Amino acid sequence: MMDYPSKLIEEAVTEISRLPGIGRKTAFRLALHLLKQDPEFTHRLAGSLLNLRDNIKRCSTCHMLSDTEECTCMHFRKDPTTVCVVEDTPDVMAIQNTAQYNGYFHVLGGVISPLEGIGPGELNIETLISRIASPESQVKEVILALSATMEGDTTSFYIARKLKAYNVKITTLARGVPVGGELEYTDEITLGRSIVKRMTYETGE
Amino acid sequence: MMDYPSKLIEEAVTEISRLPGIGRKTAFRLALHLLKQDPEFTHRLAGSLLNLRDNIKRCSTCHMLSDTEECTCMHFRKDPTTVCVVEDTPDVMAIQNTAQYNGYFHVLGGVISPLEGIGPGELNIETLISRIASPESQVKEVILALSATMEGDTTSFYIARKLKAYNVKITTLARGVPVGGELEYTDEITLGRSIVKRMTYETGE
Repeated sequence: MMDYPSKLIEEAVTEISRLPGIGRKTAFRLALHLLKQDPEFTHRLAGSLLNLRDNIKRCSTCHMLSDTEECTCMHFRKDPTTVCVVEDTPDVMAIQNTAQYNGYFHVLGGVISPLEGIGPGELNIETLISRIASPESQVKEVILALSATMEGDTTSFYIARKLKAYNVKITTLARGVPVGGELEYTDEITLGRSIVKRMTYETGE
Repeated sequence: MMDYPSKLIEEAVTEISRLPGIGRKTAFRLALHLLKQDPEFTHRLAGSLLNLRDNIKRCSTCHMLSDTEECTCMHFRKDPTTVCVVEDTPDVMAIQNTAQYNGYFHVLGGVISPLEGIGPGELNIETLISRIASPESQVKEVILALSATMEGDTTSFYIARKLKAYNVKITTLARGVPVGGELEYTDEITLGRSIVKRMTYETGE
């Protein structure tokens, strides 16, 4: 434990080092960096953090992090017949970055996890059902894009069963050997499933 | 460049990633972390940064970062006959942590560096001279503890010459093979100097 020459430094180091992946040494280096910049630098940084935390909203339809509660999906997504169900906002961004999907999203806010006390009621599942059940719904396909973990699989199963009552196709992400992945280093469960779920080879002709 | 679902997130990511060693990916991860904690977490963090930047002082005597301009050195340092001259506050802390020194400090605020436009006038050298020259001074030894770089050496030389007029012993940190350092991996300049400046072997008897 270092002796800081100032309580102000010590307090800032303590607060900065509460952030994940930042130890006290890095926190001290960051504090010294702030002191070397003009005060405006720190004011802009602190202001942006407060502004983010105090003013962030979630879209009332898809529950994505947003600057507004009104859904902006319709402005930049084109296919209202498909809804992709994900755990949280970073997953939306990851899928958007592939440029392979232009349908809508629905953010669950997590997955069912009895160990962490998260049941279906804690997730945005009811609003997903309402979206599908709405008379104005144009949704024809729901893609379950959750983590390939036990919790993700449980959640997918739960949602799929709930959606059976509606006339929508339910799909999930393809599982298999990752693109660029070498067989030798692919884990055996993935490899085993990839053989069982083998696909027709497409020559593109 | 990722598309963020919110301007607030994008702005926070931009500000956080201005910090040294933090890229946009890490900044985004930190922003999401803030959003998962209750608002109080972000308020405490931002508050401590603003409080640090707006209220930090430098001791008027030794120029160390401090909560007050009055020198607090006398409260926790015991030997007023020795002054250790360092570049900046982290050096004070590093030397304090060795528990091998209980004299006073003097922070220069950098080293002479013509390339960066830092001359002797930009550093706290005049105040060092005044401390030594003061009729109340009890200083008998000035330790020059600057970096072993060309700039550090230049600065040490400049200060040593300035201090010649006063009745103080001028010393510098021992240079040599680091403790625990293997000869094979010690750079040749350090090794060469270590042979030239070889010391009498002490058996402790």
